Amino acid sequence: MSDRIREILSWYQSENPGVLTNLYRLLNHGRLGGTGHMIILPVDQGFEHGPGASFAPNPPAYDPLYHFQLAIDAGLSAYASLLGFLEAGAAEFAGQVPLILKLNSHDLLHPEQEPLTAQTASVRDALRLGCVAIGYTIYPGTAERRLQYEQLRELAEEAKSAGLAVVVWAYPRGDGIDKEGRAALDLVSYAVHIAAQLGAHIIKTKLPTADLVLEESRMVYEEQHIPRDTARERVQHVVQSAFNGRRIVIFSGGAKTDNATILEEVRAIRDGGGFGSIIGRNSFQRERTEALGLLDQIIRIYRGEIP
Amino acid sequence: MSDRIREILSWYQSENPGVLTNLYRLLNHGRLGGTGHMIILPVDQGFEHGPGASFAPNPPAYDPLYHFQLAIDAGLSAYASLLGFLEAGAAEFAGQVPLILKLNSHDLLHPEQEPLTAQTASVRDALRLGCVAIGYTIYPGTAERRLQYEQLRELAEEAKSAGLAVVVWAYPRGDGIDKEGRAALDLVSYAVHIAAQLGAHIIKTKLPTADLVLEESRMVYEEQHIPRDTARERVQHVVQSAFNGRRIVIFSGGAKTDNATILEEVRAIRDGGGFGSIIGRNSFQRERTEALGLLDQIIRIYRGEIP
Amino acid sequence: MSDRIREILSWYQSENPGVLTNLYRLLNHGRLGGTGHMIILPVDQGFEHGPGASFAPNPPAYDPLYHFQLAIDAGLSAYASLLGFLEAGAAEFAGQVPLILKLNSHDLLHPEQEPLTAQTASVRDALRLGCVAIGYTIYPGTAERRLQYEQLRELAEEAKSAGLAVVVWAYPRGDGIDKEGRAALDLVSYAVHIAAQLGAHIIKTKLPTADLVLEESRMVYEEQHIPRDTARERVQHVVQSAFNGRRIVIFSGGAKTDNATILEEVRAIRDGGGFGSIIGRNSFQRERTEALGLLDQIIRIYRGEIP
Amino acid sequence: MSDRIREILSWYQSENPGVLTNLYRLLNHGRLGGTGHMIILPVDQGFEHGPGASFAPNPPAYDPLYHFQLAIDAGLSAYASLLGFLEAGAAEFAGQVPLILKLNSHDLLHPEQEPLTAQTASVRDALRLGCVAIGYTIYPGTAERRLQYEQLRELAEEAKSAGLAVVVWAYPRGDGIDKEGRAALDLVSYAVHIAAQLGAHIIKTKLPTADLVLEESRMVYEEQHIPRDTARERVQHVVQSAFNGRRIVIFSGGAKTDNATILEEVRAIRDGGGFGSIIGRNSFQRERTEALGLLDQIIRIYRGEIP
Amino acid sequence: MSDRIREILSWYQSENPGVLTNLYRLLNHGRLGGTGHMIILPVDQGFEHGPGASFAPNPPAYDPLYHFQLAIDAGLSAYASLLGFLEAGAAEFAGQVPLILKLNSHDLLHPEQEPLTAQTASVRDALRLGCVAIGYTIYPGTAERRLQYEQLRELAEEAKSAGLAVVVWAYPRGDGIDKEGRAALDLVSYAVHIAAQLGAHIIKTKLPTADLVLEESRMVYEEQHIPRDTARERVQHVVQSAFNGRRIVIFSGGAKTDNATILEEVRAIRDGGGFGSIIGRNSFQRERTEALGLLDQIIRIYRGEIP
Repeated sequence: MSDRIREILSWYQSENPGVLTNLYRLLNHGRLGGTGHMIILPVDQGFEHGPGASFAPNPPAYDPLYHFQLAIDAGLSAYASLLGFLEAGAAEFAGQVPLILKLNSHDLLHPEQEPLTAQTASVRDALRLGCVAIGYTIYPGTAERRLQYEQLRELAEEAKSAGLAVVVWAYPRGDGIDKEGRAALDLVSYAVHIAAQLGAHIIKTKLPTADLVLEESRMVYEEQHIPRDTARERVQHVVQSAFNGRRIVIFSGGAKTDNATILEEVRAIRDGGGFGSIIGRNSFQRERTEALGLLDQIIRIYRGEIP
Repeated sequence: MSDRIREILSWYQSENPGVLTNLYRLLNHGRLGGTGHMIILPVDQGFEHGPGASFAPNPPAYDPLYHFQLAIDAGLSAYASLLGFLEAGAAEFAGQVPLILKLNSHDLLHPEQEPLTAQTASVRDALRLGCVAIGYTIYPGTAERRLQYEQLRELAEEAKSAGLAVVVWAYPRGDGIDKEGRAALDLVSYAVHIAAQLGAHIIKTKLPTADLVLEESRMVYEEQHIPRDTARERVQHVVQSAFNGRRIVIFSGGAKTDNATILEEVRAIRDGGGFGSIIGRNSFQRERTEALGLLDQIIRIYRGEIP
Repeated sequence: MSDRIREILSWYQSENPGVLTNLYRLLNHGRLGGTGHMIILPVDQGFEHGPGASFAPNPPAYDPLYHFQLAIDAGLSAYASLLGFLEAGAAEFAGQVPLILKLNSHDLLHPEQEPLTAQTASVRDALRLGCVAIGYTIYPGTAERRLQYEQLRELAEEAKSAGLAVVVWAYPRGDGIDKEGRAALDLVSYAVHIAAQLGAHIIKTKLPTADLVLEESRMVYEEQHIPRDTARERVQHVVQSAFNGRRIVIFSGGAKTDNATILEEVRAIRDGGGFGSIIGRNSFQRERTEALGLLDQIIRIYRGEIP
Repeated sequence: MSDRIREILSWYQSENPGVLTNLYRLLNHGRLGGTGHMIILPVDQGFEHGPGASFAPNPPAYDPLYHFQLAIDAGLSAYASLLGFLEAGAAEFAGQVPLILKLNSHDLLHPEQEPLTAQTASVRDALRLGCVAIGYTIYPGTAERRLQYEQLRELAEEAKSAGLAVVVWAYPRGDGIDKEGRAALDLVSYAVHIAAQLGAHIIKTKLPTADLVLEESRMVYEEQHIPRDTARERVQHVVQSAFNGRRIVIFSGGAKTDNATILEEVRAIRDGGGFGSIIGRNSFQRERTEALGLLDQIIRIYRGEIP
Repeated sequence: MSDRIREILSWYQSENPGVLTNLYRLLNHGRLGGTGHMIILPVDQGFEHGPGASFAPNPPAYDPLYHFQLAIDAGLSAYASLLGFLEAGAAEFAGQVPLILKLNSHDLLHPEQEPLTAQTASVRDALRLGCVAIGYTIYPGTAERRLQYEQLRELAEEAKSAGLAVVVWAYPRGDGIDKEGRAALDLVSYAVHIAAQLGAHIIKTKLPTADLVLEESRMVYEEQHIPRDTARERVQHVVQSAFNGRRIVIFSGGAKTDNATILEEVRAIRDGGGFGSIIGRNSFQRERTEALGLLDQIIRIYRGEIP
């Protein structure tokens, strides 16, 4: 075990060895194994945005086996998906890549103003599918967040007692938060901190902008001269908000964008002390060879092989 | 066991020896052990106000280990926090300071008029983390208070049967209560009495002002000439409202303020028969040496070593 | 066992011997034991009206032990209170006076138009505290009454299977009922009948006025010449509404008033076939000696020792 | 509450107020109420020895109501019996005498060498029948005793949490113990101590003889010169074995014998610090008037009214 | 926290913080607090050998409060006893000394060749009585040992999940083991290792003799020249057998003996790397002043204050 992994695991001493074992698996799999960095391939967009919107840009991605294979071939740390997609390939690829079962999801089929999630899988499902972790999304800022916090609490308690790690997707959302606000530095940090307080081992959030939304935090940020001009500085602030870096935080990009932008973001994550990336649409909406190329670049940045 | 501790424990004769044992631990730990006074360090502000607003004034406080160490070094009676913060240090600091697990919390990310809490940890969590007590916040005056009362009732019954003590944060809040009203003497006394009736062993509330908000109580207070000009008299009245002093009531200051004000408040608490203080932001938002100095002063006031 | 007690218990033959035993205890304790009359001391006003409004008129009453002692010294039939107050003295006074644990309560801190109650204790609490009965308040006439009926039903079923008696406080309230209406004869009778139909063994309500509120009942009352001019006649009507007198109905006075009025009411209850009184504020808001004197008078009226 | 009752209840401070309440009821009922002494009427001999052997000597005793009435008319502290006998009269006599439901029993219909018991009622039965306590018999010295200890443990935990007291019949029996040995001082003391360690509140055993059966104890008794010549001294030793007198021990006579012998035994129990008697066959196998006369004599001895 | 305690706790990293907290409490209480040594007062002999044989040599020891007070006054690490003895004092002494509830016991009343235990208390009892640990006795070598292993497993799992530590009494016994064999070095080491493998945190066994009983082990011990001539060497071997010293092993003396012998044994335990003593009959069968004197000597040996 590398010193860095030993250090990271030392932050989770309250957890049982089962949880530590699964964190270890996540941290030691793939081409980033042992570095303390990780890349997760998440595929739940079909449920959220519809299959056409998600997979038509790269039709092989309609196939659940495609994503397992992509995560394996790219040397990623883990593959995270919903019940159906994991059931469709967990036997074929058993043991070949760490799996994370997302336990809630939401779709966009009804005109709610705020995202409302449903529990769509269980901790027992995660065990029978051989997963290393459960995943759960919270939307701090929505009216319904409290139900999510309570459901997450219950599922996390059950998962931990069964030795599973807990990965929380934490996104600021809600009536009072406009599109820009969803990536505002104060809100993203706040959401990440809430996820950590709810007992998350790994937190996934958005790469934040320099915006500040809350009056109370704006005052403090300015008084304390918290640097936030560069993406690197903002990553630093988010990581600090996650128990001063004692919880693993990884960042998503969101909608598909160009390679240069992505690589720039990855450098900021790396240099700001972030732990890695979660890359969904920017992986599977690209043609496979192209995706593998991009992921190879990202991995080499995290490995420090390219600046 | 000091006579004072024996007297305090005699108020809880209906409880099983497990609860008495954990109350004893709270009352006998730290520099105030055995005096019948206590100081608790509560750190849940990151969840309520955001990590930046809470910890940026003193960045080491982003680190969960910082608070355990602060409580230990200052010789406080207990450290109270949320699931994530306790999980992040309970193994490292096992046994070194009594822990209280807050079982509910709320954030300010959605524009609700009244604070709405979510259950964010369980009694089983409190047992596995080695806590002496559960904590729970009620907001008498809000529309949702009834759900809080019912959730508290259920959690308290479970906690007591497992030998854990029950600490209730009781704050008047709600649509009909303006900012001043939250600290009004009649409302604070009322909230404290409700917490006691719900079975709380220890109640934490605000140091009240002389304001009276409810018409019904204003009449009685004036008819009965209840003294309320000084902070000491108001503390006396609150303590009386907690079963004539047969339940432990401790007071918070709230937002960060200057040392002289805090020490004056502590004297009023002591002289009015209050049992102690719960000091969050005024501890961890100060630089560590300064915080230790302030806490030392407070402890010496409670110990009667300085007037 | 006196003939009267034998007759009263005969009305409850469907209940198991545990319930009969606890009814027997209520009917045979104190100075009214064996007469078929009873006086209960209820102390939940601190929760409903605030501690100052409730106890400041007679400050020793802030102390939970005060009420146990008052009920014992006055020779009352039972003491009814909330979880906290009973926990605070149930060990010290174990067995000395029958206890009734109120399982729901409400406060006046939020400007609801109608009283909304919360469950604040459980049947298991009643057993561990050694109570003879549970208590529960319903507010027929409010929008929420159905939830109360359903919660009462569930708790009563559990209580009866554990051998506990069920005491229901039944008060007409709600948006459509003005202050006078709350004591109107037709509404009070109606509320009492509903409580009886929900399975109450003992029903507590207000001494009614001659008012009639419901159009439908007004017509019938007048057609049938139901006498309602005197308090005695109104008590008769309420008792008749409680299964023709086959359920125990006791009456409250409400806010503190003068002795002569109270004694007049007690005579009306006695002469109208009522079973007794529940006297809270008129007991504990008086100075202790005065309260004992008043209660002695009331007891002697019920015992027929004074007219 | 008399000082003696207050002292006795102080030995059970670990118990909840429900248990204390039921102990209070036992200690305050009947003609010995408040003295710290008690007499229990136990009727389970029909199950153990057959109805003819038990009731033919006094045929009215075939009737379950007979025993309730006898216990009431004699002013005894409690009536203890099996499910069927209690079900047959608990409604008619509800509340008139404290009831103890024996939860196990055994018959002599199969030629076992050692008494083997079956659980014949439940804690829930005790609640629905309005009992103050459960009863349970252990036979230390039999091969099966371990099953009894475990069953008692489980039932006692459930009973205590529901506020019921626990009465244990503790009789030395077994292959290795001959008829004399069953009453040997060392074995009786040993059995009583075991019952107390298993959590019994009240222990019923035999009045012991001066015999010593165990080699190990014989040596100690002689070395330590433990006095055992008189019945009074032997009672003292048994009471000492029950937590130095901090558990209530009462004594049975066993088979029917003459009045003088019984009264002599009662004097020894009283003078040796025993808490009372449990008198079955010597009550109900006598003609009723005679039995009442004998019980009156016994009560007067315990009350100190006759020497 | 002393370095030694930190080291000891590091051996139990798989346990949750609740278990670590309770181990910490055991290791930091009394005059040996922080040294890594401990002395436990165990009192279950009344159940095993009878009350006379146990307490007659020092009659105040019949009183359950005596033992709590003795453990406190001597500055011992913990007091271990059965349900009844703990219930009889846990409220009075709440918090003053760590308590260990023995969950099984056996008596000598039936002529079994091998000790057969019964479960006499539960994990829930341990929680409601405020204990830091459960205790359980296994008798490797008996036919019934498997049932004990299985019952221990189940209870230990439940205890650990509730944050309680697990103390196992491990004694070689059985048909095939004669009186000398019970203390044979190979059997004692074997029993201790089995206890450790069953998940014990603390193991209590006998100070072994140089005897070897098993043919297989005799050959190995001689081939490997395992030193066993002195008590110190034998302690070393036992401690090594308990995971090379990574589980706490403490030693009992057994029957009452003279002071010089006991002190010699304690020196051997200390010098051989043992963690402490469990001293029952040699404490409470002595007159109190004498017992305190002996315990003081033992403590000073462990503290290294006398050679």
